[in-house]
Amino acid sequence: MLILLRPDSTPADRARVVRLVESFGVACQPIGSGPRGAVLVLEAEGRLDPARFAALPAVEDIIHLSRPYRMVAREWRPEPTVVRLAGGLTIGGPEVLVIAGPCSVESEAQILTAARSVRRAGAAALRAGAFKPRTSPYAFQGLGASALKLLSLAREETGLLIVTEAMDESGLEQVAAVADIVQIGARNMQNFTLLKAAGRSGKPVLLKRGPAASLTDLLLSAEYVLTEGNPNVILCERGIRGCDGAARSLFDLNAIPAVKSLSHLPIIADPSHGTGRRAMVSPMARAALGAGADGLLIEVHPNPDEALSDGAQSLYPEQFELLMEELRGIALAIGRRIASPIAAAGAVV
Amino acid sequence: MLILLRPDSTPADRARVVRLVESFGVACQPIGSGPRGAVLVLEAEGRLDPARFAALPAVEDIIHLSRPYRMVAREWRPEPTVVRLAGGLTIGGPEVLVIAGPCSVESEAQILTAARSVRRAGAAALRAGAFKPRTSPYAFQGLGASALKLLSLAREETGLLIVTEAMDESGLEQVAAVADIVQIGARNMQNFTLLKAAGRSGKPVLLKRGPAASLTDLLLSAEYVLTEGNPNVILCERGIRGCDGAARSLFDLNAIPAVKSLSHLPIIADPSHGTGRRAMVSPMARAALGAGADGLLIEVHPNPDEALSDGAQSLYPEQFELLMEELRGIALAIGRRIASPIAAAGAVV
Amino acid sequence: MLILLRPDSTPADRARVVRLVESFGVACQPIGSGPRGAVLVLEAEGRLDPARFAALPAVEDIIHLSRPYRMVAREWRPEPTVVRLAGGLTIGGPEVLVIAGPCSVESEAQILTAARSVRRAGAAALRAGAFKPRTSPYAFQGLGASALKLLSLAREETGLLIVTEAMDESGLEQVAAVADIVQIGARNMQNFTLLKAAGRSGKPVLLKRGPAASLTDLLLSAEYVLTEGNPNVILCERGIRGCDGAARSLFDLNAIPAVKSLSHLPIIADPSHGTGRRAMVSPMARAALGAGADGLLIEVHPNPDEALSDGAQSLYPEQFELLMEELRGIALAIGRRIASPIAAAGAVV
Amino acid sequence: MLILLRPDSTPADRARVVRLVESFGVACQPIGSGPRGAVLVLEAEGRLDPARFAALPAVEDIIHLSRPYRMVAREWRPEPTVVRLAGGLTIGGPEVLVIAGPCSVESEAQILTAARSVRRAGAAALRAGAFKPRTSPYAFQGLGASALKLLSLAREETGLLIVTEAMDESGLEQVAAVADIVQIGARNMQNFTLLKAAGRSGKPVLLKRGPAASLTDLLLSAEYVLTEGNPNVILCERGIRGCDGAARSLFDLNAIPAVKSLSHLPIIADPSHGTGRRAMVSPMARAALGAGADGLLIEVHPNPDEALSDGAQSLYPEQFELLMEELRGIALAIGRRIASPIAAAGAVV
Repeated sequence: MLILLRPDSTPADRARVVRLVESFGVACQPIGSGPRGAVLVLEAEGRLDPARFAALPAVEDIIHLSRPYRMVAREWRPEPTVVRLAGGLTIGGPEVLVIAGPCSVESEAQILTAARSVRRAGAAALRAGAFKPRTSPYAFQGLGASALKLLSLAREETGLLIVTEAMDESGLEQVAAVADIVQIGARNMQNFTLLKAAGRSGKPVLLKRGPAASLTDLLLSAEYVLTEGNPNVILCERGIRGCDGAARSLFDLNAIPAVKSLSHLPIIADPSHGTGRRAMVSPMARAALGAGADGLLIEVHPNPDEALSDGAQSLYPEQFELLMEELRGIALAIGRRIASPIAAAGAVV
Repeated sequence: MLILLRPDSTPADRARVVRLVESFGVACQPIGSGPRGAVLVLEAEGRLDPARFAALPAVEDIIHLSRPYRMVAREWRPEPTVVRLAGGLTIGGPEVLVIAGPCSVESEAQILTAARSVRRAGAAALRAGAFKPRTSPYAFQGLGASALKLLSLAREETGLLIVTEAMDESGLEQVAAVADIVQIGARNMQNFTLLKAAGRSGKPVLLKRGPAASLTDLLLSAEYVLTEGNPNVILCERGIRGCDGAARSLFDLNAIPAVKSLSHLPIIADPSHGTGRRAMVSPMARAALGAGADGLLIEVHPNPDEALSDGAQSLYPEQFELLMEELRGIALAIGRRIASPIAAAGAVV
Repeated sequence: MLILLRPDSTPADRARVVRLVESFGVACQPIGSGPRGAVLVLEAEGRLDPARFAALPAVEDIIHLSRPYRMVAREWRPEPTVVRLAGGLTIGGPEVLVIAGPCSVESEAQILTAARSVRRAGAAALRAGAFKPRTSPYAFQGLGASALKLLSLAREETGLLIVTEAMDESGLEQVAAVADIVQIGARNMQNFTLLKAAGRSGKPVLLKRGPAASLTDLLLSAEYVLTEGNPNVILCERGIRGCDGAARSLFDLNAIPAVKSLSHLPIIADPSHGTGRRAMVSPMARAALGAGADGLLIEVHPNPDEALSDGAQSLYPEQFELLMEELRGIALAIGRRIASPIAAAGAVV
Repeated sequence: MLILLRPDSTPADRARVVRLVESFGVACQPIGSGPRGAVLVLEAEGRLDPARFAALPAVEDIIHLSRPYRMVAREWRPEPTVVRLAGGLTIGGPEVLVIAGPCSVESEAQILTAARSVRRAGAAALRAGAFKPRTSPYAFQGLGASALKLLSLAREETGLLIVTEAMDESGLEQVAAVADIVQIGARNMQNFTLLKAAGRSGKPVLLKRGPAASLTDLLLSAEYVLTEGNPNVILCERGIRGCDGAARSLFDLNAIPAVKSLSHLPIIADPSHGTGRRAMVSPMARAALGAGADGLLIEVHPNPDEALSDGAQSLYPEQFELLMEELRGIALAIGRRIASPIAAAGAVV
């Protein structure tokens, strides 16, 4: 941490800053001189609250020389985290996990049809919401607990891993009992009570980036999960607030290589929510893979025209099959491969 | 709702859209012709889910002719909501409520000193956090329940109303038992479980705009509270994500006149979090009042240099006194007045 | 400048950075040690191109300890610049200059009616475009040179100073021959050829902030004018690109106190372009004055319903009169005053 | 165009809107009734200035049912524009054009070494600046006209097409005499005087998206070139202003599929300026190709550590070779191919 002093600060001001740093038992070194002095704090980055120094009148600015997070940082753990999932699947290694399915569980027939269709095309995991956080209180809010049973059923029949969202502490317990990966949605990225509960659940956590979150914010939210003893966090880019009214959100693929340089955690991409428009999903899914995503989260609906939510951004099954074909080719060109689905629990091999 | 068809859509496509609208028992009218046809849905705006139509392949876009919210809309209730608070104070009428105090309750001495100081300068309510949502798990998270007792004490002594934040359902019950106004923070603006609980609490709710929230998002979140039977929502602008790295956030005063044209709910402004820098708080507080804010939320700390959080954006007590003087003059120039604090419970009048 | 090294950099890497700094004849000091070393460059800030160091593979980041601009910086000149205008008017001192008028000059009758009307309400300068940069090639592009003659006429009759925009070098010569203040529009904020020509013109320059410009970008553009020997630059906030589709732009009043802390140049605000909506102009004009603006640029049209451009954001003359009344009260409350118009050239005093 | 009336508008208000539309000789149809009426304008979209209607007090909003641009729109010309370049190369067809080279021409040795190196790796065109628009007046501004001669020389020796930027009208003439493609930079995207001059030059124009430009803004700027009779416009995404201070800009690949759905013009991507960081260039170049880019603009410097500008985002020649290998594989997977460089003028085949 570099504590930058105001041009009009005095030697007494600088001495006061030094005393305050030292009062926390931390060493520091005054540097520079004349109009723009500074105090360099040599240790304890991430532990000493910079706000304490920013508050001093002689301080102009605080420059962070290291990251505010620790356990999620690449410096803390240089090798990539490979999250191990059921059936030998992984995320964060050479395999790319494709998670596909409808926005919401709507009925047994719908979710089973969807599961079979995405498995046939080559997805290894099924996504579908039981509890849906919706911007409007008048929008469909999900089937709730009964949907979780249907997701179990789909896994039993198809062998697909289950990814579904929890919105609050009580829902999280229910979701964790069924899901292979528990999703924390973008709107809850800074719901710290929920993050801590997800940390305690022990399940792999899919943490979606909020629409205004910097990568530092995202990584600090992941840190909340890790500090509760759960190292299995999968980050997910799903669109930030953009400046062009034409798109609901701005799908920010820069996050993928940028996160990889900062953290050892895997990161996947959700081009369906990221773009909000069916015609953009396949191009941006291909782009995400090219950018280095460890997985993809793609909305596919057996009949998007009748979807209760997110139909406009759901692929038709035949579009998804074509996309999977292209993804396999791109993965090959960059030295990766798309993970194959595992056999169903009841399947005879 | 205007359902815009793609240039290459056929009469059969249009007929299909009409059938889908009518299947919900809603009337519609095909308009235009040739390359850019459309279907106008005449009623049920806000009830018919536009996503159902956006999903159809022949549909290019959905144009909303009315707002997706209802109870918070000025069309629903033309006269402004005046939230009635303890001691005859109000928010949303001609009086401007100034809520001031430190970011967090740190100790009995600190909060009582702060309360006395802001009351002396003319604030009518005290703000201070007991439960603090913090971006980093390593930052000070508030004193918790014990802080609520200290806030009660401060109210008893000074007569200041109490405004403090709840972060989750269990905390909300504790906060609602003490606070005059329950705050929902920006990070929880779309924590729908918490919004519904706040709606059921019956207490006035101060709802802060999230850093990526459009005004529509903010008003839909308020709608969640109103649909639970609680009409007393006070909106608050506190800064959105901006494009200039120099500032932590972009304090968006446009929200004030814009919200007033859309909704009957009162809106206040928080220039302390909105700007994050002490030197900008007073200018932007004056600006907020000029823009039409119904109240101000201002961080003042008896000794910002020693604040455990947000010291860099806290005013010194003497800066706050000077600001109050200017605010009284500006209020006068625009036909309003700054609300006076009420007498303490134990005070002899 | 602090050159931050990568965690995996070696002593040899650091030595190489030191050698490169010293090759420019500039002193530096290695600081820190272990995983996060750095090299502190003690002088020549703003002269040494940081990009040269950012390009080295061992360098992780460059931290700027001082600003990249010089002549516009408050550190370079602590006292505020007061731009002296015709007739003893000034901008940047205690007086607040209100510049009002229609978007474009449309006809002699229109501009004279507009000029009389804004003067009557108390404006001291007239704004109106002769050359109009328009996003669409199909929109009205201004009357061109003939409009400049009409502006001259308006000044002669009313005594109002003239503010009008130049779009290119050849237009700038024509504009500078007539205008009291030459405007460089937001779209041309980084048209460096035009900025240098404005610098050479010797006329006061009103430089509007571009919709994606950080304050550093804006101040560097102003620096282009100053380096050509013209110190009379007036900055202007007019709205940046925002994240809410509901508004054309996001009028960023934070720029006002922020620029004042960084620079000695005066800054004014344009709530008409900043908000794009008539109903928001008066509240945001009051807010700008509260925030500390040195002047206001306000669109007023004698008959907005018939304006050839920007009618939707133009005030009616009677709205402008009411606003001026409020502005006088606010100015008083914060220790300033609204500048009075000067007498017309031909007026008998 | 749908002219939406305010909830409190009267039948007389509506009649007035209808009369104004009809006064332009355009037909319209009143629709809806009760609190939210509207007037549908059936023709002349893009010709009737919406601002004229937005200015009426009874009008709440204007909904655009068609795009404000015409000649660049896919509706105007359904088949994609294939820009034909020297030597039989094209852009906008199945071939993907890779344009590579240093930010600036620095010397004969530097530009020839760079040209040979990028040709060897498979690029078909050379990019390098002669005239450099720089945010700071103190940064290197390019060698100017002498650099154009060196670019000619490089083309003669290597057969690479030349892409270089023009900053103003006089520079444009010089550039057009040498370049195969004239670049208009992001800062000049709305320099309409320059756009018109580029339209008259007859040369293919590479138009970069400005950092705050919506796609509508970008397409309207292209329309300026087309209206001057030049159909050969190549759009380029190069990063918009983002919300995360960690990156200089936000490279917005969504622009690629989005532009393709709106316009017939080709679009390429510049991951070097788009990301500003060498480590992100290759991942985002691969991503751009996956998203459907018709070409790539990549900064490669024979020795980035000594580049006079943009070294931090320039690839090393060996990084570029590796990237080209991956790009060839991805192109194959999506049914395209990377264009091969043509033979040098003096080459013996």
